[in-house]
Amino acid sequence: MSNGILGTINSPDDLKKLNIAQAEDLCSEIRDEIIGVISKNGGHLASSLGAVELTVAIHRSFNAPKDTVIFDVGHQSYAHKLVTGRYKNFDTIRKKDGLSGFMRPNESEYDPFVTGHSSNSISAAYGILRANIASGSDAYSVAVIGDGAMTGGMAYEALNNAGGKKGNFIVILNDNKMSISKNVGAVSRSFMRLRSGRRYHRLKFAVSNVLLKLGFIGKGIYHIISKIKSYLKGVVYRNNIFEALGFNYLGPVDGHDIAAMESLFKIAKDYHRPTVVHVVTKKGKGYTYAEASPNEYHGVSPFDIDAGATPSKKNDFSSVAGQTLCDLAKDNPKICAVTAAMMQGTGLETFSKDHHDRFFDVGIAEEHAVTFACGLASGGMIPFFAVYSSFLQRGYDQVLHDAAIANIPLKLLVDRAGLVGEDGETHQGLFDVAFLSTIPNVNIYSPYCYSELAYRIKETAGNSELAAIRYPRGCEIGNYDVDCSGDYSLIRAGSQKLLITYGRTFSFAVEAAKKLSTFDILKLNKIFPLNKNIFEIISRYKTVHMFEECVVSGGIGEHIAARLLENNIKCEYSIHGIDGIFVPQQTIAEAQHQYGLDTQSIIEIMR
Amino acid sequence: MSNGILGTINSPDDLKKLNIAQAEDLCSEIRDEIIGVISKNGGHLASSLGAVELTVAIHRSFNAPKDTVIFDVGHQSYAHKLVTGRYKNFDTIRKKDGLSGFMRPNESEYDPFVTGHSSNSISAAYGILRANIASGSDAYSVAVIGDGAMTGGMAYEALNNAGGKKGNFIVILNDNKMSISKNVGAVSRSFMRLRSGRRYHRLKFAVSNVLLKLGFIGKGIYHIISKIKSYLKGVVYRNNIFEALGFNYLGPVDGHDIAAMESLFKIAKDYHRPTVVHVVTKKGKGYTYAEASPNEYHGVSPFDIDAGATPSKKNDFSSVAGQTLCDLAKDNPKICAVTAAMMQGTGLETFSKDHHDRFFDVGIAEEHAVTFACGLASGGMIPFFAVYSSFLQRGYDQVLHDAAIANIPLKLLVDRAGLVGEDGETHQGLFDVAFLSTIPNVNIYSPYCYSELAYRIKETAGNSELAAIRYPRGCEIGNYDVDCSGDYSLIRAGSQKLLITYGRTFSFAVEAAKKLSTFDILKLNKIFPLNKNIFEIISRYKTVHMFEECVVSGGIGEHIAARLLENNIKCEYSIHGIDGIFVPQQTIAEAQHQYGLDTQSIIEIMR
Repeated sequence: MSNGILGTINSPDDLKKLNIAQAEDLCSEIRDEIIGVISKNGGHLASSLGAVELTVAIHRSFNAPKDTVIFDVGHQSYAHKLVTGRYKNFDTIRKKDGLSGFMRPNESEYDPFVTGHSSNSISAAYGILRANIASGSDAYSVAVIGDGAMTGGMAYEALNNAGGKKGNFIVILNDNKMSISKNVGAVSRSFMRLRSGRRYHRLKFAVSNVLLKLGFIGKGIYHIISKIKSYLKGVVYRNNIFEALGFNYLGPVDGHDIAAMESLFKIAKDYHRPTVVHVVTKKGKGYTYAEASPNEYHGVSPFDIDAGATPSKKNDFSSVAGQTLCDLAKDNPKICAVTAAMMQGTGLETFSKDHHDRFFDVGIAEEHAVTFACGLASGGMIPFFAVYSSFLQRGYDQVLHDAAIANIPLKLLVDRAGLVGEDGETHQGLFDVAFLSTIPNVNIYSPYCYSELAYRIKETAGNSELAAIRYPRGCEIGNYDVDCSGDYSLIRAGSQKLLITYGRTFSFAVEAAKKLSTFDILKLNKIFPLNKNIFEIISRYKTVHMFEECVVSGGIGEHIAARLLENNIKCEYSIHGIDGIFVPQQTIAEAQHQYGLDTQSIIEIMR
Repeated sequence: MSNGILGTINSPDDLKKLNIAQAEDLCSEIRDEIIGVISKNGGHLASSLGAVELTVAIHRSFNAPKDTVIFDVGHQSYAHKLVTGRYKNFDTIRKKDGLSGFMRPNESEYDPFVTGHSSNSISAAYGILRANIASGSDAYSVAVIGDGAMTGGMAYEALNNAGGKKGNFIVILNDNKMSISKNVGAVSRSFMRLRSGRRYHRLKFAVSNVLLKLGFIGKGIYHIISKIKSYLKGVVYRNNIFEALGFNYLGPVDGHDIAAMESLFKIAKDYHRPTVVHVVTKKGKGYTYAEASPNEYHGVSPFDIDAGATPSKKNDFSSVAGQTLCDLAKDNPKICAVTAAMMQGTGLETFSKDHHDRFFDVGIAEEHAVTFACGLASGGMIPFFAVYSSFLQRGYDQVLHDAAIANIPLKLLVDRAGLVGEDGETHQGLFDVAFLSTIPNVNIYSPYCYSELAYRIKETAGNSELAAIRYPRGCEIGNYDVDCSGDYSLIRAGSQKLLITYGRTFSFAVEAAKKLSTFDILKLNKIFPLNKNIFEIISRYKTVHMFEECVVSGGIGEHIAARLLENNIKCEYSIHGIDGIFVPQQTIAEAQHQYGLDTQSIIEIMR
């Protein structure tokens, strides 16, 4: 805990009392605090380190909470938390009942909107702006969005809607030159051109920075600079998407130069119309290891500060999926892999190198990813789209409309399915089973171990099914001698009690059964549509318990219940899952225990 | 049926045999055919009339089906159907077992992808392109997209992904200067600037058109023109979003000048890299009434050709919703209305005039619409987002992530919920109940008549619920003396049989009950979460039938079944809904009968 400046900052007002040198010292303290806590708790390190000066400059320039500042995604918001009254609790970040790793309105009046998924900040901020206007408030509405999040279509929809209107609306592009995966797409190249427009840069910046720093800037002078800028840009640059969309554009400015940023924010505030301020930051800034390998330090587990984080090389479901697909692709030139900016997270790094021509990172753009993959399939390829369960929520309509209606053989690798732990509500993979099973023609598989996962990937690569293979975050729990090649597997103990489950929970069921031997287990391998034979099997039991790491409403337990009742099968039946709530941050094990989905809970219920 | 040129066109190859004058004559015949058939069948008239010359020019310039052409949305694809072997069946369009009003791969090899929802064509076409490249094909992949569809974020995601790459990829912007509602947003203004860039137009077009028409064009000359163009553009234009995204840009060109379009398509084909051709068309072209009122002729019911279509002024659920909201807004300055380019369709025209400052048409951008509305609510307003059920599918993640986690009091007016008739698979509103009921904190209401709809809108405007009020396409069927103010209503006939239902189907149940008097009716007013009292009520009956105009999988019938089984309530139970299929085009009444959801079906089952 710091005894320096940070300890004296209770709200953004305190920031405004500092001079630039003190503000710079504060940034060092903030970095030390972030590195110290995240090295213990794990979290999103590199983005947060990159946004320290930016955050301080924002809160010195605006008047939160009256002015609202939404940090897109939110994993760049740690400094924001530290300077808005949450310093004392910062060591609880990402822990059960602690501070969230993202923005949460129920945590602080300085967090005006839930963030977690990418690309929603401009929409929300524009809504707040229009509410301000309607209620006669002159407050500024500010969205801070990364270059990665700018590849999401929703950000464009919002820019299109807001552009050319009036109002105190400022979008700050936090351009750290890389989104989560390597930068992809035309927009990022366009930002690169803006950053590297040396001729323009020299001319414009030399003039404007001197004037700004000397305090000589006034509307008249800036107007002249703007005119010069517009002329030069037309000649030197190819295009600027923000101006095409009706925004004023300011920048690029060094995102670690507090004074320079504050000068531009001042100009932006005086426009009173939608304005983009382009800020260039260094991801991982101030921590040598993170600067050198920003991707590896995007999200980290606890690590030793001096030694750095050692990237885990052990197997997990993601790496098994990626390696299986990579191996299959060697023998089958039609297999493709698609990712939405999650190459590392979904285990596709090797695939991307070994099969470069059939690897497609489309940016943070799940809608496009699904339909693009459907196009690949229409053209005769075998596309696998590997995507986190919570992010596939953005592709619901595309799976339904673009894949399912024509029954296109798209393969979805649904990673992080189930409880995800410390990322909390926004990242839980608890909905995919329910929303995918509303869609005709979708076949859903839920392997519990690596070998079953590999088996299903191979099988589905060879058939014409529209298939979703879902698997959890992390490692397999057990690998038992069970044949999982059919739609279901029945493990008999000769009991009148039946436990039904699928996926990771099966391992807990087996562990519980080892201790109790009082129940049979029906493991669903294909979880939807259900093989009709299971209803005859279930009818043999007096008591049936369904366990699923998934929402109850619309989950497999309800689908089974309806068929049982319709078929007049009258057993005692109960569903154990996540019912009507969002699951907050905590470890996966903590959540599994709390919601009755671990070995101990199963033992208690099946005893 | 034409005895002219149209009757001789069996495939695009036949188009290539025509000279320009013959092609122009053919376009007249195509227009007559479209007007004649749509005046009988109803359909999307104005967009299709605008795209006739464009379609003919495309199929003379490309080599379908090897080259693939995807018409976004598809309601501009009628001419495409007429020149790709479907002229003889064209009078079956939008009828049961007839031609679809959109593109359907199972209908023709010339329809490479399902369309219906907006903004997916560039994604699908780019997928097909990459499959072509992977398999060594030099085929062109073409997407034809309207200016309205360009406001959808998915289109931008696709442009961003494809821009700056290589390949025979051509996006044709069919700019008819208005999307379905009035043009909105910065992109449309940007197109307007492109269209009206007179200085540039004169300079560039004078040179290039002359050269093109004389056949003098070669790569060298075009290169020079391009350079001039680039220079002029930088000076004269503000910006061009397509070039910012790494596309070549050609145009604008008159979309009713076949020769001019063919010249540009030729140049575009020679680029072998992503290229946008900007084509300006007149919506409704060739039918005086439709040219004068293109919005009213966007989608039409059968009409008299000489007299024109008379817009129906009668009440329907949409108009009642719009009027109720408009009246409420007079007394409550916080009420806002949001639409995603469906002002007329959702009955918000009067609201948009009477409460201009609180009416927001955000373009075809449902993701943004949901989150923007959440922002309005965060700022203290009471936003109602009126949206078709099938289009809300694109906002699933936003309802979950941006509205439900923070329990924001967003109000969704879910129009076209249930069977929609002739628009077919892509437009059925059969999924909203299932996907919305997977999300915690969402309260779902399903009024059966106008007065219940108005009651629910008023109620929800005054409370802090996150609510979805869903209602069907068209008119109320009956209005009975039933108190719908609670969560459910029980209509007793003293029977041992119970029918459970909600929404429009309740009217059919009452009509059936009038004839039979053999069953009680449990009408659900709030359909999710379920009021727990209903299970005690249901437990009194021996036989229970659930009827819902919704998918069975994840529908209310399954939610009820699970609770019954868990509570050990053992009745005979069956669910009548849409089970595991997509419902093809037919009238609403035909579909209701086929799937057992009309009065007659209810009588047969409840007898």
